[in-house]
Amino acid sequence: MQGKTISCKAAVAWAAGQPLSIETIDVAPPKAGEVRVRVVASGVCHTDAFTLSGDDPEGVFPSILGHEGGGIVESVGAGVTSVAVGDHVIPLYTPECGECKFCKSGKTNLCGKIRSTQGKGLMPDGTSRFSKDGETLYHYMGTSTFSEYTVLPEISLAKVNHKAPLEEVCLLGCGVTTGMGAVLKTAKVEPGATVAIFGLGGIGLSAVIGAVMAKASRILAIDINEDKFALAQKLGATDVINPKDYEKPIQEVIIEMTDGGVDYSFECIGNVKVMRSALECCHKGWGESVIIGVAGAGQEISTRPFQLVTGRVWRGTAFGGVKGRSELPGIVEQYLNGEIPLNDFITHTMPLEDINQAFELMHQGKSIRSVIHF
Amino acid sequence: MQGKTISCKAAVAWAAGQPLSIETIDVAPPKAGEVRVRVVASGVCHTDAFTLSGDDPEGVFPSILGHEGGGIVESVGAGVTSVAVGDHVIPLYTPECGECKFCKSGKTNLCGKIRSTQGKGLMPDGTSRFSKDGETLYHYMGTSTFSEYTVLPEISLAKVNHKAPLEEVCLLGCGVTTGMGAVLKTAKVEPGATVAIFGLGGIGLSAVIGAVMAKASRILAIDINEDKFALAQKLGATDVINPKDYEKPIQEVIIEMTDGGVDYSFECIGNVKVMRSALECCHKGWGESVIIGVAGAGQEISTRPFQLVTGRVWRGTAFGGVKGRSELPGIVEQYLNGEIPLNDFITHTMPLEDINQAFELMHQGKSIRSVIHF
Repeated sequence: MQGKTISCKAAVAWAAGQPLSIETIDVAPPKAGEVRVRVVASGVCHTDAFTLSGDDPEGVFPSILGHEGGGIVESVGAGVTSVAVGDHVIPLYTPECGECKFCKSGKTNLCGKIRSTQGKGLMPDGTSRFSKDGETLYHYMGTSTFSEYTVLPEISLAKVNHKAPLEEVCLLGCGVTTGMGAVLKTAKVEPGATVAIFGLGGIGLSAVIGAVMAKASRILAIDINEDKFALAQKLGATDVINPKDYEKPIQEVIIEMTDGGVDYSFECIGNVKVMRSALECCHKGWGESVIIGVAGAGQEISTRPFQLVTGRVWRGTAFGGVKGRSELPGIVEQYLNGEIPLNDFITHTMPLEDINQAFELMHQGKSIRSVIHF
Repeated sequence: MQGKTISCKAAVAWAAGQPLSIETIDVAPPKAGEVRVRVVASGVCHTDAFTLSGDDPEGVFPSILGHEGGGIVESVGAGVTSVAVGDHVIPLYTPECGECKFCKSGKTNLCGKIRSTQGKGLMPDGTSRFSKDGETLYHYMGTSTFSEYTVLPEISLAKVNHKAPLEEVCLLGCGVTTGMGAVLKTAKVEPGATVAIFGLGGIGLSAVIGAVMAKASRILAIDINEDKFALAQKLGATDVINPKDYEKPIQEVIIEMTDGGVDYSFECIGNVKVMRSALECCHKGWGESVIIGVAGAGQEISTRPFQLVTGRVWRGTAFGGVKGRSELPGIVEQYLNGEIPLNDFITHTMPLEDINQAFELMHQGKSIRSVIHF
């Protein structure tokens, strides 16, 4: 089908607050510097639900959501050299052009090359490759993996080892890499350090894995849903804590449990009050807190500046600070070496037709990750 | 007078909101592990004014303020080995015991050894060495340099080169070290970096010096008092900015001036709104903001978490991250080598009797530093 439009199934988000609708859509061929990918599997992440809810100020409709996918290159546009038909790829919502001020800085993974068009649901040339009966459907996060076929810029694809099952490594396209990366790349947790992880969804549990890899001496896993505790402990959490069991603020509880606070904390929810607790449970003098969760529009974090003046550090991370094209292939190798138990995260699998069930399971707190098998 | 009480002059803060009162007080001899110091000179700092105003929740009265001093050891208590009678010393409000969890961490200068008693205006044994006609006067920040004689724990003294005039290097006991250290030790500004400094009092101007030493490529100095601009430029600021000259928020002005924001920013005022501006004028992906100023009780900083998730870092510093006993002597050597123009900071000198004038000059924005000569 190279150079031709493909008709295929996709889950369309027609409007905020409505369930996704399975439709037959048209996917135009890739233009110069673009790649069309057959999606093999896609995780369903809280960020998809966040945008679908209408709380995301950047949300554009109608659109095709999905950003945690794995696929195979179907065709490439003019000038594409780094991937070829048949390559296994993971779509990247944080691209890596290697040329922009950000990529060249050596200090961040936040490539700026296509940010403005990606934020508007468009390809870099300002148009969309998706349509339904002639009506434009917008891209989402530059990835749109809830479709049998999707089109991405070449700089938004990580080429990975063929041996890795795409039904599992798709999770490295967002949640697992984000949680692990936050611990290993953003915070750079050192052996022996103490760690607190707030929120035991996919990101939080991945942060637990990262903390184990970092050889943290103590890993406190915090959630108000105790159903999450068993897996957290299996993955390596040393303490599981339900804030509802205590009358006092959870930061005070943690400070007492850890003789002054933890060395590192991670907020994996998107709740600004928990972000404050995560900062304030850090040890005076050196504790660092990393915000991973995405808060609702207009919400703000706050604390007394004394918390920072006395040595705590507040930072955040996106995609775990990982540069997708240069670093994700290595993380896939770590998975192949048995270092990352992705299978533990996949609590449900289903065909695209049942995708709304995946959102329901997530809202009910019953799933870690549902993976759509195309 | 070893082992005997000394009667001497001191400026006593009898109560919040009142001028200091010059009194003849009694200074008891040093107990074990303590040192009595003849104060030769003391700077007058905003923190003294902050406590005197009553806004400092830890303020204790009646007390003897002052924490930016230089003096000569008059006598030592039992067991004191690191300083001897006649040594030139700089009092440290951040001690360095070398033994506590904080000192041993290698990550902070916030020694915890005597924090609880120091915060209450007492020596480590829970008593005061100051009195007036039998009434106890409290210590302040463990230093109390607005007295001809003061008593400090041995761990609160940095022994410095005799050749350095105490009338100048007293400023290294607080403001100048704090501003320089924030740049060089806390932020670790690298050559070529861009820097924004908010507030051009003693701390902010010292941060300018630190930025020059760090070889920053651009040093933006921001204040609403344009009288401060000439000295900032003399010390090395490349741009001086008055926020009142702009309609839009100063962070937006700076982002435009610097193609996306600065690499490092420093808040040297204690204003929580300026702390937000300082964070938000930092470059996406890597900009770091350091809070140096001390905010009023109960005040809070806030921002959208998106600011951190997109790579900015919020931190703070106390005494510039400098370990007083091990590092201040080296900073005095830098001064002796001509690297730190302390003389530029001293706009006024006066005898102890005129100390209230020093506070007035500070409140009027007319002084950088007034130094009391005893």
